[in-house]
Amino acid sequence: MPSEVKSLNEECGIFGVWGTPDAAKLTYIGLFALQHRGQEGAGITVNNDGHLTTKRGFGLLTDVFDSPSAVDEMTGQAAIGHVRYSTAGSNLLENIQPLPFNFSDTQFALAHNGNLTNAISIRKNLEDRGAIYHSSSDTENLMHLIRLSQEDNLDDQMKEALNIIKGGFAYLVMTKDRLYAALDPNGFRPLVVGQLPNGAYVVCSETCALDAVGAEFKFDVQPGQLIKIDASGITVDKYTDDTQLAICSMEFIYFARPDSDIYGVNVHSARKRMGARLAQEQPVENADMVIGVPNSSLSAAMGYAEESGLPYEMGLVKNQYSARTFIEPTQALREQGVNMKLSAVKGVVRGKNLVLVDDSIVRGTTSRRIVKLLKDAGAASVHLRIASPPLRYPCFYGIDIQHVRELIAANKTIEQMREIFGADSLGFLSVQGVVDSVNLKTDAPNKGLCVAYFDGKYPTPLYDYEEEYDRDQAQLQSMR
Amino acid sequence: MPSEVKSLNEECGIFGVWGTPDAAKLTYIGLFALQHRGQEGAGITVNNDGHLTTKRGFGLLTDVFDSPSAVDEMTGQAAIGHVRYSTAGSNLLENIQPLPFNFSDTQFALAHNGNLTNAISIRKNLEDRGAIYHSSSDTENLMHLIRLSQEDNLDDQMKEALNIIKGGFAYLVMTKDRLYAALDPNGFRPLVVGQLPNGAYVVCSETCALDAVGAEFKFDVQPGQLIKIDASGITVDKYTDDTQLAICSMEFIYFARPDSDIYGVNVHSARKRMGARLAQEQPVENADMVIGVPNSSLSAAMGYAEESGLPYEMGLVKNQYSARTFIEPTQALREQGVNMKLSAVKGVVRGKNLVLVDDSIVRGTTSRRIVKLLKDAGAASVHLRIASPPLRYPCFYGIDIQHVRELIAANKTIEQMREIFGADSLGFLSVQGVVDSVNLKTDAPNKGLCVAYFDGKYPTPLYDYEEEYDRDQAQLQSMR
Amino acid sequence: MPSEVKSLNEECGIFGVWGTPDAAKLTYIGLFALQHRGQEGAGITVNNDGHLTTKRGFGLLTDVFDSPSAVDEMTGQAAIGHVRYSTAGSNLLENIQPLPFNFSDTQFALAHNGNLTNAISIRKNLEDRGAIYHSSSDTENLMHLIRLSQEDNLDDQMKEALNIIKGGFAYLVMTKDRLYAALDPNGFRPLVVGQLPNGAYVVCSETCALDAVGAEFKFDVQPGQLIKIDASGITVDKYTDDTQLAICSMEFIYFARPDSDIYGVNVHSARKRMGARLAQEQPVENADMVIGVPNSSLSAAMGYAEESGLPYEMGLVKNQYSARTFIEPTQALREQGVNMKLSAVKGVVRGKNLVLVDDSIVRGTTSRRIVKLLKDAGAASVHLRIASPPLRYPCFYGIDIQHVRELIAANKTIEQMREIFGADSLGFLSVQGVVDSVNLKTDAPNKGLCVAYFDGKYPTPLYDYEEEYDRDQAQLQSMR
Amino acid sequence: MPSEVKSLNEECGIFGVWGTPDAAKLTYIGLFALQHRGQEGAGITVNNDGHLTTKRGFGLLTDVFDSPSAVDEMTGQAAIGHVRYSTAGSNLLENIQPLPFNFSDTQFALAHNGNLTNAISIRKNLEDRGAIYHSSSDTENLMHLIRLSQEDNLDDQMKEALNIIKGGFAYLVMTKDRLYAALDPNGFRPLVVGQLPNGAYVVCSETCALDAVGAEFKFDVQPGQLIKIDASGITVDKYTDDTQLAICSMEFIYFARPDSDIYGVNVHSARKRMGARLAQEQPVENADMVIGVPNSSLSAAMGYAEESGLPYEMGLVKNQYSARTFIEPTQALREQGVNMKLSAVKGVVRGKNLVLVDDSIVRGTTSRRIVKLLKDAGAASVHLRIASPPLRYPCFYGIDIQHVRELIAANKTIEQMREIFGADSLGFLSVQGVVDSVNLKTDAPNKGLCVAYFDGKYPTPLYDYEEEYDRDQAQLQSMR
Repeated sequence: MPSEVKSLNEECGIFGVWGTPDAAKLTYIGLFALQHRGQEGAGITVNNDGHLTTKRGFGLLTDVFDSPSAVDEMTGQAAIGHVRYSTAGSNLLENIQPLPFNFSDTQFALAHNGNLTNAISIRKNLEDRGAIYHSSSDTENLMHLIRLSQEDNLDDQMKEALNIIKGGFAYLVMTKDRLYAALDPNGFRPLVVGQLPNGAYVVCSETCALDAVGAEFKFDVQPGQLIKIDASGITVDKYTDDTQLAICSMEFIYFARPDSDIYGVNVHSARKRMGARLAQEQPVENADMVIGVPNSSLSAAMGYAEESGLPYEMGLVKNQYSARTFIEPTQALREQGVNMKLSAVKGVVRGKNLVLVDDSIVRGTTSRRIVKLLKDAGAASVHLRIASPPLRYPCFYGIDIQHVRELIAANKTIEQMREIFGADSLGFLSVQGVVDSVNLKTDAPNKGLCVAYFDGKYPTPLYDYEEEYDRDQAQLQSMR
Repeated sequence: MPSEVKSLNEECGIFGVWGTPDAAKLTYIGLFALQHRGQEGAGITVNNDGHLTTKRGFGLLTDVFDSPSAVDEMTGQAAIGHVRYSTAGSNLLENIQPLPFNFSDTQFALAHNGNLTNAISIRKNLEDRGAIYHSSSDTENLMHLIRLSQEDNLDDQMKEALNIIKGGFAYLVMTKDRLYAALDPNGFRPLVVGQLPNGAYVVCSETCALDAVGAEFKFDVQPGQLIKIDASGITVDKYTDDTQLAICSMEFIYFARPDSDIYGVNVHSARKRMGARLAQEQPVENADMVIGVPNSSLSAAMGYAEESGLPYEMGLVKNQYSARTFIEPTQALREQGVNMKLSAVKGVVRGKNLVLVDDSIVRGTTSRRIVKLLKDAGAASVHLRIASPPLRYPCFYGIDIQHVRELIAANKTIEQMREIFGADSLGFLSVQGVVDSVNLKTDAPNKGLCVAYFDGKYPTPLYDYEEEYDRDQAQLQSMR
Repeated sequence: MPSEVKSLNEECGIFGVWGTPDAAKLTYIGLFALQHRGQEGAGITVNNDGHLTTKRGFGLLTDVFDSPSAVDEMTGQAAIGHVRYSTAGSNLLENIQPLPFNFSDTQFALAHNGNLTNAISIRKNLEDRGAIYHSSSDTENLMHLIRLSQEDNLDDQMKEALNIIKGGFAYLVMTKDRLYAALDPNGFRPLVVGQLPNGAYVVCSETCALDAVGAEFKFDVQPGQLIKIDASGITVDKYTDDTQLAICSMEFIYFARPDSDIYGVNVHSARKRMGARLAQEQPVENADMVIGVPNSSLSAAMGYAEESGLPYEMGLVKNQYSARTFIEPTQALREQGVNMKLSAVKGVVRGKNLVLVDDSIVRGTTSRRIVKLLKDAGAASVHLRIASPPLRYPCFYGIDIQHVRELIAANKTIEQMREIFGADSLGFLSVQGVVDSVNLKTDAPNKGLCVAYFDGKYPTPLYDYEEEYDRDQAQLQSMR
Repeated sequence: MPSEVKSLNEECGIFGVWGTPDAAKLTYIGLFALQHRGQEGAGITVNNDGHLTTKRGFGLLTDVFDSPSAVDEMTGQAAIGHVRYSTAGSNLLENIQPLPFNFSDTQFALAHNGNLTNAISIRKNLEDRGAIYHSSSDTENLMHLIRLSQEDNLDDQMKEALNIIKGGFAYLVMTKDRLYAALDPNGFRPLVVGQLPNGAYVVCSETCALDAVGAEFKFDVQPGQLIKIDASGITVDKYTDDTQLAICSMEFIYFARPDSDIYGVNVHSARKRMGARLAQEQPVENADMVIGVPNSSLSAAMGYAEESGLPYEMGLVKNQYSARTFIEPTQALREQGVNMKLSAVKGVVRGKNLVLVDDSIVRGTTSRRIVKLLKDAGAASVHLRIASPPLRYPCFYGIDIQHVRELIAANKTIEQMREIFGADSLGFLSVQGVVDSVNLKTDAPNKGLCVAYFDGKYPTPLYDYEEEYDRDQAQLQSMR
């Protein structure tokens, strides 16, 4: 569960359900459990006896659906929904998902988590042939490819289209009579299937959304699979055999909710093991207590405390209303210690030697601020321990860290970072530490994790991003 | 910091600052840190060179001040603000504080935390003499009494008025040229004074708001004190000598933020000690782990775990967006396990014997729901431990628990409650346990704590509530 | 019916109904017909079995009641409502009427059209005695006086209070069991009583509101009368015998809707007669046609055309959406002829000699703009004829023209004005012309009309305004 | 200018300007003058140095642009805008114009007044080829056809596309470097070009919008023309020679504002001539006065009065705020005479024999209601005269009267209608009367007017509507 003090952003959570009354309401509840995956836009498409209606808007789910009637009036037996993080510049209503498409004789709605690596090429190619795009979202490509496919049934059109797009994607596609779910060949993003007590199927990004709607977990969607749910039940098919699991390790480290399970591994427990491993790899002598940055680092901090034998304490408190304020302290106020989101517990940290556990470091601005906050509150020393390796490379599969110049670890040594943060010591978890702590049951490389942002080894070609990546790396070389 | 799953509500947080630019902005930031004390209304009165302007409305601070300009346009050098919990039936804009009063030649604004016990008598008396009240709030009485006072200066008018009102109150009164703060003779509610780096004084409900605005803590306001802040600085005076500290123990147990200090005692640390004492008083054999109900019970759970030697685990996750949704699951959905606010971490609790620590029990509906949630998630057993004594009597000094028929502990035995909750065992902390854990440095009864809701011994006469209290107790006797 | 191009503003329209289902809805409909009397605030108080609830806000009725449910949820058998013009500086929600007053044992709501001349003195006097005012509105005085009255029944308390206040007023006062209507001793403002098919009584500012709700006109309330409507029907009483009719002549000239009748005289017909009299008093030779400034001057223009034998034409068109735009042309755009509210019909006026009839002139800015608009559209000549005498003195009884320095006719000669307006000639109707055209059946001075803004002879003492009036006149003398 | 009491709805007004600062503001002002052409949606696309941004929404212009900043922040040197009437069922934001289209390398925006007769065929054809439509609007076809054109420059692509679409259309197409305007081969809808003092060109639906923005009229766009405005000035070209003027006669009868000129004919004057001709064709004996239904019938009523020598009177008053209320009287209230939009002036009509002039009759419900209103107000007799022929056939070129079953004149004889309306007599203007009164200078059939809704003779093939039209006529035959 992300703390607001991070600048790392997942692009999206998705939820779909087929064959139950109150489909839109369940989708709202499911998305509410996935809100941590995107706070800048939300939408729901409901299917009422074959007629699809979409409601979407900017902000949190509670901004878009701002009264009970806003959901209640969306009558229907199936629905898909989406919560979204939008990158600056693409701030258009048209980009908020589900994307609705109306044809003379039918309707589609698409929801997508991930990032395509050949979206620009496809769009240029199709526009040259007369295609008109509704949005600036890469998501829309799938719709065009489906409609341009010469295959004679929708199943095969889907498969053909899915084989053309590249990158990271978990797609939900609803038509008047069915719901498809598809996962990319590397399974970069999580996607699970569950079942309601009344037999209706649910497909969504994390198991926490299954729990929220009272659905029983059935299975993790596998790389390359195409799931179809319709009146005759669920069909598990595949559109490619060329697959290899490489799920985003940041899901375990930071994005996913601690109560979710991914491929059978509980996220909180994985984080706790990372914290324990971190205590082994990066111990601190003579510390008085371990504290975590709320909320995303608390599991790792517990693990560090348990392994090290140090007391686990509440040294930082997060304002639970901080998701919502539009009002920020001025820079002058900030300088004099004003902090609206995080507070140090003076009565706890005063005079103490602290192990401060954080899950990851992106730009480093937050780390610097938190160390200062604790020292201003009287901490004797702050030993910063990060429960993941240094982030040094961009992600092209759905996390918003595409510019290496913004990644402090790509530009500074560990000692430089320690100095910038004002910490007394600084240590990171190893890549192997992450891999062992998650410990997925697979013989894929890195036990099925994508760790490209740590080691630069991408599990797929980069297509449209190849050139950008090379340019970034060259620039970086020249800087070092 | 209250979890949303409680039905216990503090009436209000207050914040005032005198003599600094950006007074309204600082008040916004201070109130933001006090938002946990009231979520149903908020307001700020700013003093711009002697001219007072008030903005107030329903909902969270972020609803009332819904754009940066909403605060920025409130130019001024002093301000007071208020966040409010409103009881049903008094849902009028006129009741939202600060209460603004405009006279032909001057202006006042009042903000109040607490509850007066002779408000009804005063109002009836004054209305018979022709007075017209703006609001249905007990707060307004002070204004009428000040204006009716025959004393010839405002200081003495304040003192006269403060001696007439009874009950629990922390008042802020701003005029064009000064800011008063006053605390009731028992100090039922917390009130602290701090100072900004530029020398300006701040008065507010909790030290967490001082931290939020970068102010240094100066002192706790004492029972019976009347503080005046104006161009010539701060004056500490008193309006009565007949005082005896009896601060609300629920502030330590549940209301106050863990990072606040009250009379020198850190709230988190006090809660941790309560948890440790609870482990001594109410141990559980053969348990696997301790979990707390987020967020208000986590400190006590840590204390219980540390004292008992059991692992402290994350067995429940609270949806961090839950403060805001207007959309509720239907009863049918609720029955099938839908829960939008709290989730059990199945991967953690499955098959385990749990010690579940909660801070207090009011109606008991939440306890029942959480026990069921954990058992549905596969917990082998749930041993519920409450880090406070059973709530059996109403509060008349500012907490919204006036009807004993709603208090489950006033109506049921511990064994009956255990059965209702579906817990495997149930244990409460003793009154002495609370008193010793907080451990205020005073020789007042109960070491300066009000524990009347536990033992029915009120530190003051009840005035207008005497009759109501007797009727409630009689009814209760007849029921048992 | 006022055109937006005027700067003369009536303070308020009022409507009350007692003893019918849908009382709030009828009040909404009645106020909708009175919207021309005030566009800056609106409110309704409904009485549901003795419980009074008020909804009020800034803007048009349709801004305050912005959905059907906003009115439908105001269930009740009686209601009063108000539309309001608010003077700058008193832009507070608290001033929007009806003013609601809640006492421990009862409730009141007040709606008022007019202006009291001793409000400031009363308020100062009562504040010295400890009274607290809710609003900065003069309306509130009546409530305080009622409550302070030592009389032992409400009828007598009302009468005592009404004898203390001075100036122009039509009051509606609703309590849980009755509705009072009271008119000042000069009847400055119009007030009529009607009856619905089901027998329920209606009291309101103009007969157009009776027509709008389907009520039959019963009688005009007379100066000094106090009407009471309750379960036993309607009672017509009086609180003073010292009365003399002096109804505001501007009601006939400009404010009232043309379809209203006042003391038996239809407003449109009176205006038409003023136009005809104007043609006699101020003829134009060699004109081609008569045009009126829409909408308030069309009746007078028709009268002028009919009497003079000239064709009546549509030379100006008013944008029917102009009540609502917040967006104004910049000064630069205005200079180049941009006009969002009024257009000249070029095809009609090009090359023609025009008689342009307007109802009155306040500041003169509009007249200048309209003459320019017509000349820019190609008019050969524009002969401006005003269907009322020059406005030279302030009104203290409820019209917002209190500063003579803003009245062009108080500062300039007719020839000066003509030159400023750019008109080819300029003529005004005489005071006697107004009096004869309205022709009320009474032997009061000026046949029962107040014409003080024309001749400076006020029918009452000015109380609090005496000094202000003298100062203004002195200043004016020094300027001339 | 339409009265609200009509159910005839024009689909849209358009406005474009190229090459001036404040382009969006001028477009707002221009659209404000065209608001009568569509009240259910509005939008503006601004072009800021080649970057196009669109803001659009439901309701009046003042709903969509609800603060000055909403327009001010749309910086740019060119803009197009649209006001819209949307038929039920197509109530989607996506249909509100201008329609924005974003391509990888360019942007377009389209605004359209009219209705295409082969839109369905084109859409089906293109969807079969893989095209995806954004909206359900027929407007969008042009964009697809432009993009699919194989011509090698945009001018020729436009021409090719314009030759494929059929029906009534006035189009504005803005790209980053130019603004096109195109009119259909029959010129069904009006479209004019003007010039601002600074030289910038304006294209819009009516001359009243030119006047509103201070632009000088230059010329009426002719059927089949394609106008291009860009940095090098204005180019007048044509895309077809196969043209014949058949401008909608309802523009003169009802839609256009009285101050607009169409092909050199002033609308008010044309209406006045229609009224005069109506007096000749359908005189009334022994009438006392002529009254018109405000506001659209006032010109015709003046003409009737002038020609007949009867006095012109104000017998009906329209509530000037009626454009905005969401709150309607219940049917029960309506029965008892409640009317929120129109009032009879009792003081004028009581006991009188009236000639009531209305511009046209669609369903007839309004006529019935107005006759009743006047009789309830005491009119001795009401002789209804309609300043246009009976509407008996649907329009396929942009007016929303497509279902003949809704047209009372298609289903009833004149005597039947008279009885339904409760009028004492009823008479219509002849088709020749309309043609002669408008009197356009052309030798096209009906002097260049389309009168198909009166005589069923459509100036073009009906394409997609052929079948629908035949079915409707057959049904009608069977009913008669």
